[in-house]
Formats: sequence, structure tokens, C-alpha cells
Amino acid sequence: MKRIQVIGIGAGDPEHLTLQAVRAIGATDVFFLLDKGEEKDDLAALRRTILAEHARQPHRVAVVPDPARDRTAATPAYAPAVDDWRRRRADAYERLVLDELAEGECGAFLVWGDPALYDSTLAALEEVHARGTADFTWAVVPGVSSVSALTARHRTTLNQVGRPVRITTGRRLAEEGLPDGPDDIVVMLDARQAFAALAGRGLHIYWGAYLGTPDEILLSGPLDTALAVRISQVREEARARKGWIMDTYLLRRPAGRQ
Amino acid sequence: MKRIQVIGIGAGDPEHLTLQAVRAIGATDVFFLLDKGEEKDDLAALRRTILAEHARQPHRVAVVPDPARDRTAATPAYAPAVDDWRRRRADAYERLVLDELAEGECGAFLVWGDPALYDSTLAALEEVHARGTADFTWAVVPGVSSVSALTARHRTTLNQVGRPVRITTGRRLAEEGLPDGPDDIVVMLDARQAFAALAGRGLHIYWGAYLGTPDEILLSGPLDTALAVRISQVREEARARKGWIMDTYLLRRPAGRQ
Ligand SMILES: C[S@@+](CC[C@H](N)C(=O)[O-])C[C@H]1O[C@@H](n2cnc3c(N)ncnc32)[C@H](O)[C@@H]1O
Ligand SMILES: C[S@@+](CC[C@H](N)C(=O)[O-])C[C@H]1O[C@@H](n2cnc3c(N)ncnc32)[C@H](O)[C@@H]1O
Repeated sequence: MKRIQVIGIGAGDPEHLTLQAVRAIGATDVFFLLDKGEEKDDLAALRRTILAEHARQPHRVAVVPDPARDRTAATPAYAPAVDDWRRRRADAYERLVLDELAEGECGAFLVWGDPALYDSTLAALEEVHARGTADFTWAVVPGVSSVSALTARHRTTLNQVGRPVRITTGRRLAEEGLPDGPDDIVVMLDARQAFAALAGRGLHIYWGAYLGTPDEILLSGPLDTALAVRISQVREEARARKGWIMDTYLLRRPAGRQ
Repeated sequence: MKRIQVIGIGAGDPEHLTLQAVRAIGATDVFFLLDKGEEKDDLAALRRTILAEHARQPHRVAVVPDPARDRTAATPAYAPAVDDWRRRRADAYERLVLDELAEGECGAFLVWGDPALYDSTLAALEEVHARGTADFTWAVVPGVSSVSALTARHRTTLNQVGRPVRITTGRRLAEEGLPDGPDDIVVMLDARQAFAALAGRGLHIYWGAYLGTPDEILLSGPLDTALAVRISQVREEARARKGWIMDTYLLRRPAGRQ
């Protein structure tokens, strides 16, 4: 039987690795790397650091180009472009399992943060498995998510006492505005700085970029226009300097005296 | 200066520990343990295992009784009982910092899962710090939450593609019913099995108890009455056998073709 492990490697700090992940990496014959283009060199560098430290030497690496997703479609979740992207992605994964992994071997995907959060590796594997063309089992190693990294660095909690939390994307927050219900909202994948439209509404923001890395930036405070502008500027400067950015933030609506 | 580390130790598996947590534990002079009574012996056992493996030997342990919270109050977040509990909790923490930690030493709290999620250690430390009576700095080491442990064991994602997630408590779910917005809901701290009232509404449930431990139980499927009854029975049997239970679940409302 072929085995695959989907290993959460944490959100940027090589020390986010769990002991379980270290063990799983050490038991891996082939690492599958999806090549997302050169803009995220630092992420590739983290993977290399981790492999140099924890993988068997020598080990095999199989690289496939990550099928680019057409992000211009207006309703991304339903567009035919997405079906097409998912099919091509599953094709790529299927080839990895069929061609790069021998019977009895163990392959691994190293996934940023926690594999459960806004990552498509698990869906792609499920899709390949459902095709029935490749015989394999798979397991998931949980990781420290960027959400946990964010709150840890700000030394704050995710939820207020007994209260709910919402995790959402920048796109949704921009489209839907501030939801009524939850008092705490974590925003990921926000390329459009949706927080800027929410200044002056009594929110507190905890913002973090490149969390866990030497480039980490943290900003927080009551989300007024000055702070929104400040975060936007810092974000743009960092993005221009490094060529890419990864940031996330928590918006807290204080739920009154608790 | 006195230093304190709030260390997430993962949700039940000693291998959930991160390398950062291992290092932080190794650098600790005194471990602060809140004694929550004997019902959760297994949790205490995990802490002992971790200390035996990763702490300096010998190391100091300072135990304080955890001030019990009056959970009978109707509106827990606002009741005077909670103010009182928080004050007594901060008192206990203050004494730890003042009496058990010497200048230049490092103390640590080992926190279940990730310290940001439904845990009051950070709030208590902030409260002690605000009193100004004890001079200390503190830092947080993020951990694998029980939410990540749950989804990993079910090999599923937390969110559907581009969709939001809600994390809430059993109490809130029971009181508020199924929220309109999010397609995926994680429920924690559910002593009343709020899922039972939601059978037959097109939800899929991923349930897990004692995640990461040798007693782990997983159940999942379309949430019809049969499955709701089954989970309740399994839960009650396990709780009766072990004397306590820790369980959490993800309710997924399939968001249509994506
Ligand atoms: C495709 S998602 C993957 C999330 C990942 N699975 C996790 O658990 O963190 C990428 C988004 O995660 C957030 N993110 C991941 N790593 C981050 C980091 N080191 N600093 C800030 N944000 C990060 C950003 O919001 C980014 O847009
Ligand atoms: C006080 S909260 C602490 C949560 C913790 N900080 C975390 O990140 O998982 C306790 C709740 O977490 C969930 N939980 C924690 N560990 C668990 C485990 N090993 N298995 C199942 N549920 C768990 C249960 O819902 C439990 O009621």
C-alpha cells in the first residue's frame, strides 16, 4: 500500500513544528512540493530548512507546478473555472501518487499552518481517492495555524469569555460587511484590506504579517482611520520590499463587561 | 525581571508539542499547575509525561487550587459570580508570581490545546499585570488546538472553499440555534449535546472525544436522529466509564457545488 501524510508545518517559524510532524517527516520517502512560482521564495526556504533538519538524508523531492487558479471569476465558488482548476489539481496529485510513489512507500505534503484551514490539499487528495485510479491511504498531522500564531504574538485570546468566533476571508468581509453575530472575527486571505472600511466602528484590531518569521510585523489598537491608514502603509511597504505578503488579523468587538 | 510563558501543549497527544514548546519547557524554572480536582486525572497525567520528558530535572512545580466558577448563574458572562471568580483567579495567579517565582526566573503555565481558545490563563495574567503589584513579562507559545486535532483525525477541512467558519460553545448553540451565516460550525464545551436538537436538518457532523489520547473516539456522518442518538450513547458510556469527557464537533452545512 502507498501511504501519504499531509503534515501541518506551522505558520512560519520552524519551531512551530510538532513532535508528531518531526516524526512524520523523518518517516517520509518522497516529499511532494507544489511549485507556486518564485514570489514566495521565503516559504520555499522554510520548507528547505525543515527538510535539511528533519528529513532522512538523502530523501526524494517531487515537484509539480501548482495549476494556477483563475481568480478573476466573479463568483469563484461556482464558476466553471474552479471546476476546471480542481480537475487539473487532482490530475497533478494523481500523477504524483501514481508515478512518484512506489508500493510500500510514504509520501508527504508539507502544508503551511494547519492543513484544515483554507488549504486545498485535503480536498484534492479526497478527489484523487474518489477516482479510484490510485490505491493509497492518507493521514493528517495537525499544525499550528496562522490564527494561533497571530493571537500568541499579540498575547490575546481568540474568543471573549463564552463568546463565538468567526473565521472568514477578506473577500467575504468586504462583500458582506461586519456580521451581526460574532464578537471576534479572524480575517485571512485579505488582499484588499477589508479592515479599512471598518474604521471608527468600535473595533479593536490585532494585525500580523509574516508571523513567526524574521520579518514579522505586529500592529494593534482601536481601529480608527489613523490605524487603518497606518496598517495599509506598513503593509504596502513590506509587500513592495519583499515582493509578497502574508497577513492576517483579528477584529474584536468588545462584548461589554464580562 | 520575572518571566512567564503560557505554553500550548496540544490537545491530548504528547506529540502535539511543538519544538518551541519543548524549548520553552526546557527553559522553565517553575511550572504553575492549577489543580482542577481529580476528575481529570488523565490531563494531569499528560502534563506529568511532558514534564518527565522535556523539563529540566529536577524542576519545581507550584500547585494552586483553581477557584471554582459558579456555573449555575443564568447569564454567565455578566453575573457578579463571574466577577468574583475572576478576582479570586487573579488573586491565585498573583500569589504564584509573587511567592513562587524569584527575580530572573522563568515560570510556565502548560495550557491544553492552544492558549487562545476558550482558556482563561491569558486574561488572568493580564488582570494580574494590570494590578501593578507584581513585576513580570509574559509570552505565549501557540499550540495545536482541539479544533485542529478534530479535523486532522477526520481528515477533513475546517472551512469549505472560501467560506467562513464559526467556533462557538454548546451553551450558545443550544440557546441560539443554528446560525444563518456560516456553513461550518465548531462546537466546544458542550455539556448538553446541543447537536441532538439539530438532527434531520441536512448537516454533516464530525465528532471526536479524547482526541489524541489512547481513548480517542471518532464518529461522523449525516446528522440524522440515529446518529445523534448513537453519539449521545457513546458519549454517555465513555463519560460513565472514565468519569469525565472532553469532546468537540464540527457541523457542516454543505454549501452546494463548489
Ligand atoms: C491559503 S491560507 C493558508 C492558511 C494556513 N493553512 C494556516 O493554517 O494558517 C493563507 C493565509 O493564511 C494567513 N497566513 C498564513 N501564514 C501566515 C503568516 N505567517 N503570517 C500572517 N498570515 C499568515 C494569511 O491570511 C494568508 O492569506
Ligand atoms: C476549556 S476548552 C479549552 C480548549 C483548548 N484551549 C484547545 O485549544 O483545544 C475545553 C474544550 O475543548 C475541547 N477539547 C479540548 N481537548 C479535547 C480533546 N482532546 N478531545 C476533544 N475535545 C477537546 C472540548 O470541547 C472541551 O470542552
